[in-house]
Amino acid sequence: MSVQLSFPSNALFVGHKNPDTDCTCSAIAAANLWGGTPIVQGELNPETEFVLKQFNVEKPAFEDNFAGKDVVVVDHNQTTQSAASVVEANILSIIDHHAVQDNFFFQKGPIHIDMRTVASCCTIIADYYADMNVEISAQMAGVMLGGILSDTLGLTVPHTTDIDREVAAKLAKIAGVEDVEAFAQEMLIAKSDLSKYTAAEILNLDYKDFIFGDIKIGFGVCESLLIDKVIAKHDEISAAMQENKKNGYEAIFFAYVDLTTNNSVVIGADDADFTVLEKAFGISKGDLGVSLEGKISRKNDFIPPVSAYFNN
Amino acid sequence: MSVQLSFPSNALFVGHKNPDTDCTCSAIAAANLWGGTPIVQGELNPETEFVLKQFNVEKPAFEDNFAGKDVVVVDHNQTTQSAASVVEANILSIIDHHAVQDNFFFQKGPIHIDMRTVASCCTIIADYYADMNVEISAQMAGVMLGGILSDTLGLTVPHTTDIDREVAAKLAKIAGVEDVEAFAQEMLIAKSDLSKYTAAEILNLDYKDFIFGDIKIGFGVCESLLIDKVIAKHDEISAAMQENKKNGYEAIFFAYVDLTTNNSVVIGADDADFTVLEKAFGISKGDLGVSLEGKISRKNDFIPPVSAYFNN
Repeated sequence: MSVQLSFPSNALFVGHKNPDTDCTCSAIAAANLWGGTPIVQGELNPETEFVLKQFNVEKPAFEDNFAGKDVVVVDHNQTTQSAASVVEANILSIIDHHAVQDNFFFQKGPIHIDMRTVASCCTIIADYYADMNVEISAQMAGVMLGGILSDTLGLTVPHTTDIDREVAAKLAKIAGVEDVEAFAQEMLIAKSDLSKYTAAEILNLDYKDFIFGDIKIGFGVCESLLIDKVIAKHDEISAAMQENKKNGYEAIFFAYVDLTTNNSVVIGADDADFTVLEKAFGISKGDLGVSLEGKISRKNDFIPPVSAYFNN
Repeated sequence: MSVQLSFPSNALFVGHKNPDTDCTCSAIAAANLWGGTPIVQGELNPETEFVLKQFNVEKPAFEDNFAGKDVVVVDHNQTTQSAASVVEANILSIIDHHAVQDNFFFQKGPIHIDMRTVASCCTIIADYYADMNVEISAQMAGVMLGGILSDTLGLTVPHTTDIDREVAAKLAKIAGVEDVEAFAQEMLIAKSDLSKYTAAEILNLDYKDFIFGDIKIGFGVCESLLIDKVIAKHDEISAAMQENKKNGYEAIFFAYVDLTTNNSVVIGADDADFTVLEKAFGISKGDLGVSLEGKISRKNDFIPPVSAYFNN
């Protein structure tokens, strides 16, 4: 690809709110490649902390004031998934792998936008190292591998592409990770340790806002090897969702994702939300919520039917 | 770039309404690369006809009913620049080099979007041939060269990048165009022959709608080596603009671009439009309109200040 991207040295590389491993590692690896500062907009989750510790990489600085700053957006493309001040930023570029819905980062002039249908934003960043013939250090290979394994649940989710797999294999070699499956399992174990979180914190750990026209919805996801321990807090999580709904939300959804079976149960905050889910997925509610077999991806499995429902 | 793009064989490759050489040639070259059908949404201008004739390439079919069809969007990214039915299309990918404003082609799920800050969409398409190791025929090299020379006015506009230049040189060699400058001049002469057009047709020849929030504006451009012949029709063009304004437009603008000096004069349909231009560009109106020295690009020079004005 004959792109010759460069950014000013004061550029901030910014992942989405409620940072996950892919957005955090994308920001770190991109800032390392182009120069500039990686930024997170919140507390790291235990999986991301595990990955950074593993490869001895520093946590990015926290920042949520982007007014007037040069910003490269990674792993998201909607202003609603960043601090409000991001609309006052000077957006230099967007590198992402999500669908474009409302509230895209609009610009006054043309900028470089690269959205690919791979499973991890780190796959795209790693490809820029290759295109630009920049050697990848063991540390950077480790964090990008972490991002890919996180978003693909160890290369197992159905939307994992051959490109994600090839890039992960290459990065694992450079990072000195001999047993990728075992490393991915360690990441899942770290991610599944939610003992220190309250129900409200679990709801917000991987939570995103989506805007469809005038409608705002919230969609949280919890992926765990020990999902039953999370489901044990169902009443408190429901209460936290109902509390959230007061903040101008049309609906709040939350998915219990069982990483041992790759099945999910999606719940709503109240009866109205459950009706939306039943109509969007064409599935009746069970005891807990709408059961989706083999579906675990918010981006590919959960949001498209919900988006179609609200946009029709 | 490790993208492995493929599209179904019934895919339509669609440029914007009021087709120009870059969008038409992008659609042709992309359809040739990936398989599928190139589409135009209107009559070709004399420059595009010249280029296709030169390389003995067939005109794309006309189509403006995209409902339910598989569509790859080239050289634009806003639904307002396609037929209304495009919102009912299945958008497979967007390959473009314009700013993202309102009315982007939103999707239900992730798709491949490639927006680069090069001066021509054909530059991007040519890069895919290279990435995919597909040999470029003399015909396809010719049409892509035509697209690049058209959008860069023979590689002379300031936003022409080194990448556009490199790709154009490579394509010229394959196409057997020995004197690129002379060929670009022939294109400009073909483009400047507007003798068969009425004032209303000249206004619409390279005309685009832009939506800023609830505001719709129209912006036509006429680039010519013989701009005085166009300016001679100023009263009729003004009348056509005022007529257009009745169709729900907040403002209508039109740029007389003098290709012999690379200067422009931007006019409005009425006093209110001229006031917008004066405020957007910070320049007082002259006899004809707002004079912009060395500025000739709608995408890079004209729209950003107008967009900033309406978005503030």
